[in-house]
Amino acid sequence: MEPRIIKALAEIVGRENVLTSPEELICYGYDATPGFSRLPEVVVRPGNKKEVSRVLALANREKIPVYTRGSGTNLSAGVVPMDGGIVLSTVRMNSILEIDPENFIAVVEPGVIVAELNAAVEKYGLIYPPDPGTVTTASMGGTVAENSGGLRGLKYGVTKHYVLGLEVVLADGQIAEFGGRTLRSPGYDMVMLFTGSEGTLGVITKIIVRLVPAPTHRKSMIAVFHDLNGAGKSIADIIGHKIIPATLEIMDNYTIRTVESFVKLGLPVEAEAIILAEVDGDEATVAQDAAKMEKILRENGGQVRVATSAQERDQIWAARRAALPSLAKLRPSTFCEDATVPRSKVPDMVRRITEIAQKYDVQIGTFGHAGDGNLHPTLVSDLRNNTEMERVYQAMDEIFLTALELDGTLSGEHGIGLGKLKYMPAQFGEVGLDVMRAIKKALDPNGILNPGKLVGQLQ
Amino acid sequence: MEPRIIKALAEIVGRENVLTSPEELICYGYDATPGFSRLPEVVVRPGNKKEVSRVLALANREKIPVYTRGSGTNLSAGVVPMDGGIVLSTVRMNSILEIDPENFIAVVEPGVIVAELNAAVEKYGLIYPPDPGTVTTASMGGTVAENSGGLRGLKYGVTKHYVLGLEVVLADGQIAEFGGRTLRSPGYDMVMLFTGSEGTLGVITKIIVRLVPAPTHRKSMIAVFHDLNGAGKSIADIIGHKIIPATLEIMDNYTIRTVESFVKLGLPVEAEAIILAEVDGDEATVAQDAAKMEKILRENGGQVRVATSAQERDQIWAARRAALPSLAKLRPSTFCEDATVPRSKVPDMVRRITEIAQKYDVQIGTFGHAGDGNLHPTLVSDLRNNTEMERVYQAMDEIFLTALELDGTLSGEHGIGLGKLKYMPAQFGEVGLDVMRAIKKALDPNGILNPGKLVGQLQ
Repeated sequence: MEPRIIKALAEIVGRENVLTSPEELICYGYDATPGFSRLPEVVVRPGNKKEVSRVLALANREKIPVYTRGSGTNLSAGVVPMDGGIVLSTVRMNSILEIDPENFIAVVEPGVIVAELNAAVEKYGLIYPPDPGTVTTASMGGTVAENSGGLRGLKYGVTKHYVLGLEVVLADGQIAEFGGRTLRSPGYDMVMLFTGSEGTLGVITKIIVRLVPAPTHRKSMIAVFHDLNGAGKSIADIIGHKIIPATLEIMDNYTIRTVESFVKLGLPVEAEAIILAEVDGDEATVAQDAAKMEKILRENGGQVRVATSAQERDQIWAARRAALPSLAKLRPSTFCEDATVPRSKVPDMVRRITEIAQKYDVQIGTFGHAGDGNLHPTLVSDLRNNTEMERVYQAMDEIFLTALELDGTLSGEHGIGLGKLKYMPAQFGEVGLDVMRAIKKALDPNGILNPGKLVGQLQ
Repeated sequence: MEPRIIKALAEIVGRENVLTSPEELICYGYDATPGFSRLPEVVVRPGNKKEVSRVLALANREKIPVYTRGSGTNLSAGVVPMDGGIVLSTVRMNSILEIDPENFIAVVEPGVIVAELNAAVEKYGLIYPPDPGTVTTASMGGTVAENSGGLRGLKYGVTKHYVLGLEVVLADGQIAEFGGRTLRSPGYDMVMLFTGSEGTLGVITKIIVRLVPAPTHRKSMIAVFHDLNGAGKSIADIIGHKIIPATLEIMDNYTIRTVESFVKLGLPVEAEAIILAEVDGDEATVAQDAAKMEKILRENGGQVRVATSAQERDQIWAARRAALPSLAKLRPSTFCEDATVPRSKVPDMVRRITEIAQKYDVQIGTFGHAGDGNLHPTLVSDLRNNTEMERVYQAMDEIFLTALELDGTLSGEHGIGLGKLKYMPAQFGEVGLDVMRAIKKALDPNGILNPGKLVGQLQ
């Protein structure tokens, strides 16, 4: 990058917030997705919207790519600076600007960590429900840009259901505000357009979110199934009885065995599936729903253990939280995917993934959010082994196309980024993708914002 | 309109679905908004997406305006064909295509009436929550295009919170599908962009919506306040105690007097405000929340009556439902607006509206959804009286600018259309509005779809 650009950036954000040494840049050259990395030419850390605006105006004038980065936990190579250029880190914009308990609203800067927001609103008896697995690391800006999901999606929805307003800096440096403090805002829903746009349309500099009352009670249970069908039928029956658990998770045999070998929780390694569930709400509802759910799980052949203390509850969720770290320990390269299907197709999908693993001789553990069909087939492999990787990528292709075949979608929460770009035409067709590209072109005519991601390269 | 165009349209949709006689056209020349009317040149009633596609391809080639029309209940002149052209009625696309009780999903054509969908899903113990006042008349396509709200917004949200997928015909006749049967779909959120786009970006030909379990119990109550402050404090206290009623409505003194004079329900005509509320859910929660709510209402000076039978419940809601019809009977021209503020500002807003009515010597009754701040100041007047109308429009201006001043928004559910177009820069600024116009231009370069509405005329 030309020294005059570095100098101009330093004038905007201060010399101490411009990183150019290789040892600094290397931290910004990858995210949590294996197989994608590239060093940026420079990292800038603006402190406010005005600095963001000036950085973008400069980059737009000079046609330099800009990659906005929160905490870098992305799983679809969404923040890797594949064309070099500028990484714009939101780390310094990390203030909770306002908590408005009367209107159940919080206003935050993009660098606030999701768990920090939840900690801050707890004293008002409120929660911010979206809870991706990375909740203690991920930034609000990143989770909004990725429309992140989480364990409570079934009952509480995903990030988009909580974003009421956004302040964004556009590609040319202009600043706009959309939405606000009401449930609905007129005009085109730019708030929803920017939510999930993966940093390709603008830089989010302020976020207004909706909060909800914290549930006063909750009850967790774990059910072990020797037959996947019993687990599948349980999911259908629980929902069929109009019980909407906050969390309804599934783990397949491969995941169970892996977790048990690393964590020794006493999980039965021969089980075909485990369901982990939690209902929340007021005391009476929780008691009633938990009793019904336990009965359903047993009737479908599940061996059920209901947590009777906070410690037992923690133990149940420790098993679930151990899934990804345990799988990741098996082999050097972990691809945690999020192929998603309608809830009723979860057993089909789990079975199909197992068949795909056998067909391509690839190691796949599947766990995830059974209640909303958002599964995490996790392919463990070694990037250095070319012949294995060929099989891994073939298996991945087949997993995503199977999700589409089952009326599902390419991404339940991890985004498209670069990792899943090649499947986009299969979900949206060329017409649908062209519409998205027209939007990208309208808002970022020079294509400087996270170029090549989500909708691919523009003509 | 040239006869060759009429002929071409007849070839697409059949002669019987092309209306051209003045007595037919007159039905399509207005909506529920006073002060806006214009006859279309032709009305077409396509029966499926292919016919819609061919109509749009023709109109786009010939640069003829197309106004998509559901049931015409719009309150912001959103469907009035102000430039003549083609009205495209969705009345024939009126099938419920699928109900999927396992996944809580329904798939409908745009001409399905909202209440019909609810009637169809009832036997599965499910509801489609968005319930605008026009629920028995309004079409699904219209309510999606307007992102309609309703009485249950506080607890259940508005239309956008239930739309999972859309099939749309684009301005040039191409057909695209966005979203689907999962909670979240990747790529730009075109489903949310089309939801609330007021017919300016495409024609919706299929809608996939999310359903939720029907509450098994509900309890309604009415509380009379001699002091508006008591009503305002009650709203704050109810929410402050983390009670989220399905419905939490307010009526001001002017509305109370008007309703009482027409319907004779025994409402106290000297009361400054009435609150009407309903909690729903399972038996225990409803009992508990209703008891707490009754206590709060009494503590703040309310005289409370809790419905103990279905008949008493119906009576309470009859009062609420009578609000708009009663106000509309007072004078020839009724402007029912939807200026919306954060919940905590509702008492301020009601007071400011009363002051505005006095200042401009205009008759305004205010009622609406206190729980989500979506108020309906209803200005009753006579369009034929020019000097009165000048004052009415001045009052309207001040009401909307007051809503913005109180951190609110121009529209809680009725849309922008033409009626509120002039206030858009005050809410979004020229930068925000330019972004929306860039979107409009990208998707409808010839500006044929509902031209002049929502984002105004393009340069």
